[in-house]
Amino acid sequence: MSESSTLVFDPARQPAPGCELCRSPGGLLVACNGAWRAIRVDDEAYPAFYRLVHREHVAEMSDLAASERARCLELLVGIEEILREVLCPTKINLASLGNMVPHLHWHVIARFDWDGHFPQPVWGTRQRADDALRLAQVRARLPEVDHRVSRLFEAGV
Amino acid sequence: MSESSTLVFDPARQPAPGCELCRSPGGLLVACNGAWRAIRVDDEAYPAFYRLVHREHVAEMSDLAASERARCLELLVGIEEILREVLCPTKINLASLGNMVPHLHWHVIARFDWDGHFPQPVWGTRQRADDALRLAQVRARLPEVDHRVSRLFEAGV
Repeated sequence: MSESSTLVFDPARQPAPGCELCRSPGGLLVACNGAWRAIRVDDEAYPAFYRLVHREHVAEMSDLAASERARCLELLVGIEEILREVLCPTKINLASLGNMVPHLHWHVIARFDWDGHFPQPVWGTRQRADDALRLAQVRARLPEVDHRVSRLFEAGV
Repeated sequence: MSESSTLVFDPARQPAPGCELCRSPGGLLVACNGAWRAIRVDDEAYPAFYRLVHREHVAEMSDLAASERARCLELLVGIEEILREVLCPTKINLASLGNMVPHLHWHVIARFDWDGHFPQPVWGTRQRADDALRLAQVRARLPEVDHRVSRLFEAGV
C-alpha cells in the first residue's frame, strides 16, 4: 500500500512514564490523524483485529471532550463497516478495557462462528483449534481492509 | 427507589425468535426511554456491572442511524461518569460483543484493582478470590448509582 509508506507515528505530546502506547504505535500502523491512529494487531488467531488508539494518555472516554468522543465513535463505526463489508464476519466486537494499559484504545475485532473462541470473547476460554485455511482467507483480504481504513482517515470522518 | 417502581419494560416491537433481550429486560431494570434501557446485571463478583440495551433487535452499532449512535454514546459516557464519581473505580470497561445474543447491548463495568479478574477482562482468567468486604462496600453504593442513572435517562441526555 502506497499510503502506508508515508505514515508517520506521532508519539503522545506528554507521554506517561512506562506507557507503551504513548511511545510506540502498538501494532502495524494503518492510518492516523492528529488525535487517533488505527493499528492492526499481530494476532495469529485473530488477523482482523484492529485498534483505534488515542494519541494522548487519557484513560477513559469521559476524559475526552464530547466532540472528540463523537469523532472516536464515527471512526469506530467506520472501521466496523469496512470489516463487515470486506469480511462478512459473524459479529463485530468493540471494547475499551485498558486495565493493563490505561491509555484510551478501542479493540475492533471481526469475529467468525468458526474462530478459536466464538461465541466467547477473545479473552475467554478457547472453544476449538484454529482453522488455518479460513484464517488464511481472512488474512488475504486484510490489504483491502487496511486500504479502506486508510481512506476513512483521509476522508476526515 | 421511587423511580424504579414506575419503570415498565418495553419489549421489542419486532422480537427476533429466541432472543431473550427482545422479550425480557435482561437484568434489573434501572432506567429506560424509547430506544434504550439500562439494566444492572446480577453478578456476585461484579456488582457494578451495567448494560445499556437497545430496544430493537439490531446486531451492530453500524445498523443504527448516526443520531441513534450518538445518543447511545452519550448514555454510555453518562453511565461511565456516574460510576466514576460514585465508586472511584480503577478503570471502566466498555464492550459491545453480542456473540451469544446478537441484540445490541453494551457492557459498562466498574473495575477495581482488587477485583477477581483485574487486570484481565471479566471474561478472562480469574486472578484472585473475591474480596467480600470490598464487594459489600461497592454494593452499598449501588442505590446511588441506580438513582443517578435513572435521572440521566429522565434528563433526556
